Amino acid sequence: MGKLPDKYKEFSAWYDSVIEGADIIDKRYPLKGMIVWKPYGFKALKLTMRILEELLEAYGHEEAYFPMLVPEEVFSKEKDFLEGFSGETFVVERTISKKLTRKLLLRPTSETVMYYMFSIWITSYRDLPVKLYQTVNVFRYETEQTKPIIRVREIVRFNEAHTVHRSLEEADRQIEEAIEIYSKFFDTLLIPYIILRTPKWDTFAGAEYNYDFFTIMPDRKAIELGSVINLGQKFAKAFDIKFQDQDGKWKYVYQTCYGVSERVVGVLLSIHGDSRGLIWPPSVAPIQIVIVPIPSETMYNDILSKAKKIEERLKTAGYRVKLDDRPDLTPGSKYFWWEFRGVPLRIEIGEKEVKEGKVTIARRDLMKRVVAKDEELEETIERLFREISEELYRRAKEWFYSNIIMAESIEEAAKKYNDVGGGIIKLPWCGEDQCGLAIEEKIGLEGLGYNPKEKARGKCVVCGKEAKYYFYVGKKY
Amino acid sequence: MGKLPDKYKEFSAWYDSVIEGADIIDKRYPLKGMIVWKPYGFKALKLTMRILEELLEAYGHEEAYFPMLVPEEVFSKEKDFLEGFSGETFVVERTISKKLTRKLLLRPTSETVMYYMFSIWITSYRDLPVKLYQTVNVFRYETEQTKPIIRVREIVRFNEAHTVHRSLEEADRQIEEAIEIYSKFFDTLLIPYIILRTPKWDTFAGAEYNYDFFTIMPDRKAIELGSVINLGQKFAKAFDIKFQDQDGKWKYVYQTCYGVSERVVGVLLSIHGDSRGLIWPPSVAPIQIVIVPIPSETMYNDILSKAKKIEERLKTAGYRVKLDDRPDLTPGSKYFWWEFRGVPLRIEIGEKEVKEGKVTIARRDLMKRVVAKDEELEETIERLFREISEELYRRAKEWFYSNIIMAESIEEAAKKYNDVGGGIIKLPWCGEDQCGLAIEEKIGLEGLGYNPKEKARGKCVVCGKEAKYYFYVGKKY
Repeated sequence: MGKLPDKYKEFSAWYDSVIEGADIIDKRYPLKGMIVWKPYGFKALKLTMRILEELLEAYGHEEAYFPMLVPEEVFSKEKDFLEGFSGETFVVERTISKKLTRKLLLRPTSETVMYYMFSIWITSYRDLPVKLYQTVNVFRYETEQTKPIIRVREIVRFNEAHTVHRSLEEADRQIEEAIEIYSKFFDTLLIPYIILRTPKWDTFAGAEYNYDFFTIMPDRKAIELGSVINLGQKFAKAFDIKFQDQDGKWKYVYQTCYGVSERVVGVLLSIHGDSRGLIWPPSVAPIQIVIVPIPSETMYNDILSKAKKIEERLKTAGYRVKLDDRPDLTPGSKYFWWEFRGVPLRIEIGEKEVKEGKVTIARRDLMKRVVAKDEELEETIERLFREISEELYRRAKEWFYSNIIMAESIEEAAKKYNDVGGGIIKLPWCGEDQCGLAIEEKIGLEGLGYNPKEKARGKCVVCGKEAKYYFYVGKKY
Repeated sequence: MGKLPDKYKEFSAWYDSVIEGADIIDKRYPLKGMIVWKPYGFKALKLTMRILEELLEAYGHEEAYFPMLVPEEVFSKEKDFLEGFSGETFVVERTISKKLTRKLLLRPTSETVMYYMFSIWITSYRDLPVKLYQTVNVFRYETEQTKPIIRVREIVRFNEAHTVHRSLEEADRQIEEAIEIYSKFFDTLLIPYIILRTPKWDTFAGAEYNYDFFTIMPDRKAIELGSVINLGQKFAKAFDIKFQDQDGKWKYVYQTCYGVSERVVGVLLSIHGDSRGLIWPPSVAPIQIVIVPIPSETMYNDILSKAKKIEERLKTAGYRVKLDDRPDLTPGSKYFWWEFRGVPLRIEIGEKEVKEGKVTIARRDLMKRVVAKDEELEETIERLFREISEELYRRAKEWFYSNIIMAESIEEAAKKYNDVGGGIIKLPWCGEDQCGLAIEEKIGLEGLGYNPKEKARGKCVVCGKEAKYYFYVGKKY
């Protein structure tokens, strides 16, 4: 393993080197956009998704499982949805040796699958609200350039929540709740974000409106982290999901859905990594602590025995810990190995540590060592985990906020975007579609959306009227 | 909910009533063999699979994820495998709006997907052994009658382990380890079993030999619980998986694989349920304890407050517990509701329990109550969980062993099978293929296999030569 490419100047090269070199994934599987998750990476993916699942359950969602294949007639019920997904949805028409009588589609997302069942399950206001989620593989034939973990054709872990409500107000409140859940989730992963309402012309197929969470990658492109969608009654009408209300009348339900995928793992690796490789936030590190015994001619038995005791002690305490006792590697090459793989803390145990009843602990983020007494080990680890998280978050925020740039005119926006070499640009906007579309076209960037709660100042950069919002633009993954 | 059909006389009707009525699954999804798992059932499925995953990890297996779609040319490398799976493997040739340039297959199992990668990963004896597993959805276009959870076209949770070894002996030892792991797993689920080596003519496509775990369902049909397969070098040669050994020579690897699916949940529900509905083993019960407060005109606040305190206390102690405080249902209808859903223990709290500092605990298996002092709650629960597990296992074994029947001749076998109305029949067998096939044909039952370690007595029921094994036959799911 030579020197890594520069994360900021050659992001793609850096990304490919670390995710493959550090055993996160293998992209040599012979299908474009479909990758193998190796044990080290997959463990982090599961830990990451578990944080989200626990949050969803704490907010009253239950986990279910709905089939992966969708009969064509079910998939086609909502026309905007059908049109939005027809290019990227895989179709099964046969087995190797037999033709089927119906077309079956591979879910690109599960609205149609679930809502068919909701129309059976829901008959009374007593059945509401429904708050379900599932974490499943979904399939999208992406025609744009694929990128491992970030833009794939098999999304290996799509966490999609779907809720059903009695009133528009309740659905709106659910959107707020979903935003709260996702905010806590990305906060835990130490990923800074902005939450933007998608402009009307880009709204999710079949939705009333939706919000996206965006962050900024090391190449200064914006990336969508998660989506929160108010479906209104569009699917309710397409799937005939009705309930009898307390007043005896039959009414269509209101629905929301929101989703996050393994992409967040690709993003957090990109944001927190550095010139030496990955850095995991302690909360999702597949290995949180590695223990390296330092060779000694006279004391190696004592050293190894202390290392094993500490391994056992930390495992019992619930840490994900690994003792690296490979005999054929020097401590230096072990340090390098685990630094590259992003393990947040390393414990070194040598003669001195045995004699003095201490351990040396090295932080991955600052590449600095501290010494702790044996009896203070757990509290020191807890403190260091907290400090590492704070440091990673501080760095991530610094990067993020320095790449959100205000501009008062199209020209200023274009110039600043070029000077900085990317980022997210915000411009005063009157809120009208034609002006938003004009901004996109004139700057040659994509519209990411606007924050309805953010007060705007200045004049719309297209029509010159009083600005209602800031319109956010950038290049998107 | 009326009276349930008799579990033994009308097993299918009983099964359908409980799995749908008790919110395990919903089979109204409009694709044959593809069902919806409801939260209550899905939680049990996850708990069940987690037991297996923890066992696999304790024995040194690591979890990974390999893609769901397989390019046709990869799928076709091992000819027996291709032939064995060609009828049931779904094919993708297009998206809704575009034709693809290659055929992609939906994994019916992941040998071909994984072994393609193994041929890249493995180059030296130092890379061996490899012990990986994944828990994924797989697809098989079953042409036989489907049955929810038991025989499906989307297997929602297939736990498949795949190992690679340096020598035949090591692979054989791995088979023993796999049998040990699965034995522990089914023991934990309180499912009795026999382990049989599959007769040559039924061996898994692409394998040298395989063992199956069988149990007996309430309709006295045999059912396969899991499979352990020695692949020898067949796939190694088809996929060119070679390693350079210590002696410098390049050699083909030896491989094994073994798998278990959600079917085990269908089986354990069938085996442990009774005339009142389901009974979960405490280890996988989605709710282990339900708390029912008993209405009281004067003391209900105290009762509810005690119920909540106990709920909190048990949750903190790690139990899956639910307080059923629905105001519109009587205690009796709550009892009935949770008995049907198989919750192993119910805690009743009324005036008496509050006044006397006690709780009443009802066992689902025996439908009996015990009283425990508040301070002895956890230890009583632990004892009752143990006793319930023992009682369920005792019942299951009694059923199982009373349905394994010895016969000394074809006629006796046929008569006993008819008298008992099913079961697994064992007959003395010389071990020759033609005699085994003749047994199957003459009795009109399927051969399940034989136990190479079991000493046989008597004469082969076909050729009259000294018996080498017992040949086991029955009707199979």
